[in-house]
Amino acid sequence: MEKLEQIYEGKAKKVFKTSDPDKYIVSYKDDATAFNGEKRGTILGKGAVNNRVSNYLMQKLEEAGVPTHFVEQLSDTDTVVKRVKIIPLEVIIRNICAGSMAKNYGIAEGTPLNMSTIEFSLKNDALGDPLINQYHVAALGILTPKEIDHVIDLAFKVNDFLGPYLYEAGIVLVDFKLEFGKLDDETIILADEISPDTCRLWDKDTGKKLDKDRFRRDLGDVEDAYKEVQKRLLGE
Amino acid sequence: MEKLEQIYEGKAKKVFKTSDPDKYIVSYKDDATAFNGEKRGTILGKGAVNNRVSNYLMQKLEEAGVPTHFVEQLSDTDTVVKRVKIIPLEVIIRNICAGSMAKNYGIAEGTPLNMSTIEFSLKNDALGDPLINQYHVAALGILTPKEIDHVIDLAFKVNDFLGPYLYEAGIVLVDFKLEFGKLDDETIILADEISPDTCRLWDKDTGKKLDKDRFRRDLGDVEDAYKEVQKRLLGE
Repeated sequence: MEKLEQIYEGKAKKVFKTSDPDKYIVSYKDDATAFNGEKRGTILGKGAVNNRVSNYLMQKLEEAGVPTHFVEQLSDTDTVVKRVKIIPLEVIIRNICAGSMAKNYGIAEGTPLNMSTIEFSLKNDALGDPLINQYHVAALGILTPKEIDHVIDLAFKVNDFLGPYLYEAGIVLVDFKLEFGKLDDETIILADEISPDTCRLWDKDTGKKLDKDRFRRDLGDVEDAYKEVQKRLLGE
Repeated sequence: MEKLEQIYEGKAKKVFKTSDPDKYIVSYKDDATAFNGEKRGTILGKGAVNNRVSNYLMQKLEEAGVPTHFVEQLSDTDTVVKRVKIIPLEVIIRNICAGSMAKNYGIAEGTPLNMSTIEFSLKNDALGDPLINQYHVAALGILTPKEIDHVIDLAFKVNDFLGPYLYEAGIVLVDFKLEFGKLDDETIILADEISPDTCRLWDKDTGKKLDKDRFRRDLGDVEDAYKEVQKRLLGE
């Protein structure tokens, strides 16, 4: 399968049409951005790590009963995925307080939570990806109440699988962002990626950050951290 | 019952101890603030309107099965209420898009919603009263999941009663903010106030704003609007 017309270029990926109208090819880039595009840089090898890690985890999730867009890995950076209409929500699950949650509520990063949480941001750069809750999602007609409940169920199912799975690899899943899409028949499946770009991953023993916070916060050792995640999961 | 030691002074009310340890006296002020205290002013007669309107609506809500803190009106501005520990959440119900919702999601004020919504803000001036959802409320131990569900049920019950009741008086209930408190036995009851300070109230026929937005947005005619609400509800 070959890339045809490019239909989208995002912060970390390009998407191409293919000869199959129901399939796209996603091409992962080494470009990194943070803070709604205010910080920009390159993380050498990031595209390959994210492509391979995401494909690996999506296949594991499929086996665990979560439908995903993954079809076939073509190369280190290119993957065939099912064509979906992306739901314009960032779905964030948190197991430990960090990032914007710590900042918004004045709580120390690393504070344990009484339970895992879910939150939504409306994907809209001009509005700054504002927080939105499930009532507003339904009130504005972004999803039906039933669809939102399904997305919430799927997201927690991802967490229930990924948390223990990553822990086995010595990684604490602090929080992560998911995106979902709809197939033509309105079936909702997991899309986008699951990678050190979209998860907070802390080493189980040392607490070392193995994710994009190394880039956001200028912690150094960024490439090695990404490769460490790949190595622990894929063994290479 | 007489006011003893003042234990709290807020933006629009003072609270005093009484000889009964389970009762407070709330004293409504004419002071008005907006935008987290950045804008300040006086609305002549506001304290009396809010006190009387709030007491009137709380009594109607009690009859409709919603427990409230109301005990007895002492004067135009003073009321005896049950002593509660305030839950540090602003509970906002919306029937029509306006205010921060319109701004946050880039939607025109007055846009109808597919369904009524609820949202929470953490009462914390230093943090700017950030939006918080029910998962975070539970995860941070502010309320148990069961208590949050109960607050959500009570808030929608208030809306289900107040919406049609105000409409009978020619007023559209656009949105409103509630606060709840806990009695010593952990029972959750409605506290704070329900008034033109805490609701968006639009004239059914003309759309004229009959609420604090007249002060926030310098629309003039502020005192008359507050008195109009009192007149329509209490007939005086």
